[in-house]
Amino acid sequence: MAQKPSIPKGTRDFGPSEMSRRNYIFDTIRSVYALYGFRQIETPAMENLSTLMGKYGEEGDKLLFKILNSGDFLKGVEFHDTLDGGSPKLAAQLCEKGLRYDLTVPFARYVVQHREELTLPFRRFQIQPVWRADRPQKGRYREFYQCDADVVGSDSLLNEVELMQIVDEVFRRFGIRVCIKINNRKILTGIAEMIGQADKIVDITVAIDKLDKIGLDNVNAELAAAGIPDDAIEKLQPIIQLSGSNEEKIATMRKVLYESEIGLKGCDEVEFVLSQLSTLNSQLEFDLTLARGLNYYTGCIFEVKALDVEIGSITGGGRYDNLTGIFGLPGLSGVGISFGADRIYDVLNQLNLYPKEVSTTTQLLFVNFGEAEAAYALPAVAACRQAGIRTEIYPDAAKMKKQMQYANAREIPFVALAGETEMTEGKFTLKNMTTGEQKTVTVTELIEALQQEL
Amino acid sequence: MAQKPSIPKGTRDFGPSEMSRRNYIFDTIRSVYALYGFRQIETPAMENLSTLMGKYGEEGDKLLFKILNSGDFLKGVEFHDTLDGGSPKLAAQLCEKGLRYDLTVPFARYVVQHREELTLPFRRFQIQPVWRADRPQKGRYREFYQCDADVVGSDSLLNEVELMQIVDEVFRRFGIRVCIKINNRKILTGIAEMIGQADKIVDITVAIDKLDKIGLDNVNAELAAAGIPDDAIEKLQPIIQLSGSNEEKIATMRKVLYESEIGLKGCDEVEFVLSQLSTLNSQLEFDLTLARGLNYYTGCIFEVKALDVEIGSITGGGRYDNLTGIFGLPGLSGVGISFGADRIYDVLNQLNLYPKEVSTTTQLLFVNFGEAEAAYALPAVAACRQAGIRTEIYPDAAKMKKQMQYANAREIPFVALAGETEMTEGKFTLKNMTTGEQKTVTVTELIEALQQEL
Repeated sequence: MAQKPSIPKGTRDFGPSEMSRRNYIFDTIRSVYALYGFRQIETPAMENLSTLMGKYGEEGDKLLFKILNSGDFLKGVEFHDTLDGGSPKLAAQLCEKGLRYDLTVPFARYVVQHREELTLPFRRFQIQPVWRADRPQKGRYREFYQCDADVVGSDSLLNEVELMQIVDEVFRRFGIRVCIKINNRKILTGIAEMIGQADKIVDITVAIDKLDKIGLDNVNAELAAAGIPDDAIEKLQPIIQLSGSNEEKIATMRKVLYESEIGLKGCDEVEFVLSQLSTLNSQLEFDLTLARGLNYYTGCIFEVKALDVEIGSITGGGRYDNLTGIFGLPGLSGVGISFGADRIYDVLNQLNLYPKEVSTTTQLLFVNFGEAEAAYALPAVAACRQAGIRTEIYPDAAKMKKQMQYANAREIPFVALAGETEMTEGKFTLKNMTTGEQKTVTVTELIEALQQEL
Repeated sequence: MAQKPSIPKGTRDFGPSEMSRRNYIFDTIRSVYALYGFRQIETPAMENLSTLMGKYGEEGDKLLFKILNSGDFLKGVEFHDTLDGGSPKLAAQLCEKGLRYDLTVPFARYVVQHREELTLPFRRFQIQPVWRADRPQKGRYREFYQCDADVVGSDSLLNEVELMQIVDEVFRRFGIRVCIKINNRKILTGIAEMIGQADKIVDITVAIDKLDKIGLDNVNAELAAAGIPDDAIEKLQPIIQLSGSNEEKIATMRKVLYESEIGLKGCDEVEFVLSQLSTLNSQLEFDLTLARGLNYYTGCIFEVKALDVEIGSITGGGRYDNLTGIFGLPGLSGVGISFGADRIYDVLNQLNLYPKEVSTTTQLLFVNFGEAEAAYALPAVAACRQAGIRTEIYPDAAKMKKQMQYANAREIPFVALAGETEMTEGKFTLKNMTTGEQKTVTVTELIEALQQEL
């Protein structure tokens, strides 16, 4: 036999059980997005490389999958370039298109390209795969889904509030206990202003984040090692030791940042958002060490951690003030979130939180004893389907044992049989595969029984 | 301003309205597939080129989108190859992976790769995009969705019957009147055997298909021009002039093919399938001129035509006896169908058959008059969402006119307002945007009113 076929590393097949679980995740997120008035769009898998290049940093450019031009792909390629092993310049000549790397840049491109058709504020969601030529490893894939929602064209903090409510509602539906961490880029800018060390803000947040693990002295030592002067470290002390309730933390930050207009604005924003979210199911924590995507976000930023599983952030997002500027449409503010479907899948698996229905696909199997019996069963099969019961008839008159094994392997909860006796009576024997219970019923009774049980 | 960004030719963005319509199509097909016990799988967008090459003919190989290898893509490329303009050999050295071209080959690869995990017969469906570097033109795209269902591991004709029932049910739900055309590859083989012209079967079916348009004499002339000898044309006469009911046509074919074992087998198969489909909504026609994918299919073949719109086949499929043989697993028979989502979309548009709900996304908009009014509205917004009503609050305190324009542009059927008067009374004014009717209601009444109307 030929060698077993395979798929490219870092990619996955999703079989029926995985698909049921993934669809449960996507459907839950999709229906909450819709409940909040977000509308779905889809963009092509392939974008022009001119749209994608330069948007994800130098490293990101390398991780783009590029698509070889069709036809004579060497046409117009300068000969000396072909000697230069795999250079980006040559790649750009061989390839005009690439696979999308995230949903944010294609969305920005979409907004600019279709701006005449759009009614602002535009609330869109998008659930599609993205591709990255990353080195594959556990939990990191070269093809994975993103589930994004964004609002563009509104500065209102109500958008931040609603996105947090969406996060809360989605994880409430999943039954995953989470902590939503919130911070604001303006506060971080305020801190940098205050100590005159704008370029050190990442070092500062990373060091502060270690407080619990390494203690105050070591944090201060790390800050010094990062080149932050003693007087600045002195000023940072109330921030490093920031504690208490969210209100207390914000009050402290207001004192520390009293001279920074932008810093105080950040405090206002966080305070407003928190004040609107008092009825959440989730924990809500103002976390100064949260510093995701510093170059990208300009206002509130958030991240979600699962409380009962050790895993990285399972959702994140924030406010960006100039998403569409890169495509020539400045001044459009946006705010968005992105659910990490793969990690949510892992969390649901570990906590075994899938509802039972998720694994049930076919609900009823009719056994096939032969041509006459199948002909007798077919109208019943049709009636069950008409009643909305997901029904199969085993297509071949295989051995009874094989058909029952099929029902078991497929986790089909009910099986219907009709041999000579049942056919004479105009009935079926209905077997509950979980309890082993059997009863003889008419088609109407069979449908009623299943509608009650399922 | 920079040049307006664009997308690669032959690809499309789908905005919210198109997505609602497309989701309606996919959801309908998906739920009928599930009703018949088909389970969903997904395969990666990228397959190894070794999986894809040679499966779609020489022309197909050229239409595969190939993905440039990551990193130093010139490593190991032989220098003289780079001089040969865009040769397939060089492409194969630059690219290991390609985008899937259809769902059938990846499915065959999936079955072989996962055969130990699968319970046969395996009923799978798959709804994913495919990519082809075809010259884009009206109705032909470089990225489009396929919606396939296949059963592998069962020879039973009940599978053919059920697939036809699925087709019937899907188009019944859409409200599209269709004719399902059915033929059998074995009958065509029988005809070829009978006249000793196996290689002429396509010419024959094409010529016969023109009977209505050009008349018998011209059909016979075309057959002669195609190099079919006179005595063979003589034998073909009853076939060319085949008419009557499906039963009559099959009876005629049995007489013509009396010496061909395989031809008669084909007649048996078509007769059995037709006999099981007497209660269909759709028209059902045994059509001898149907000859799709001759090299691929081995048994029943079918195609669906819309009765009220001039458009090509909107669904097709058939039985193939050796799908997995190309990947080293022979002897597994399969039968499948594929709905053409893009053409179905066009038909539904032309006949204006979308249910009204499809275009309604947000059902209720709360107007935002300012901070105090928004704070008053927010608990009502939350209550409406909890009741399952898709609700928005306009995020900014913009001018009333602008907010009403937003509601109109978004086709939101209900708007709720609360100014000073309503706030004093603990009420909202609910406006029906279709009728213009207004009434003052409590939150409970508002929810009841909407649940009745929507």
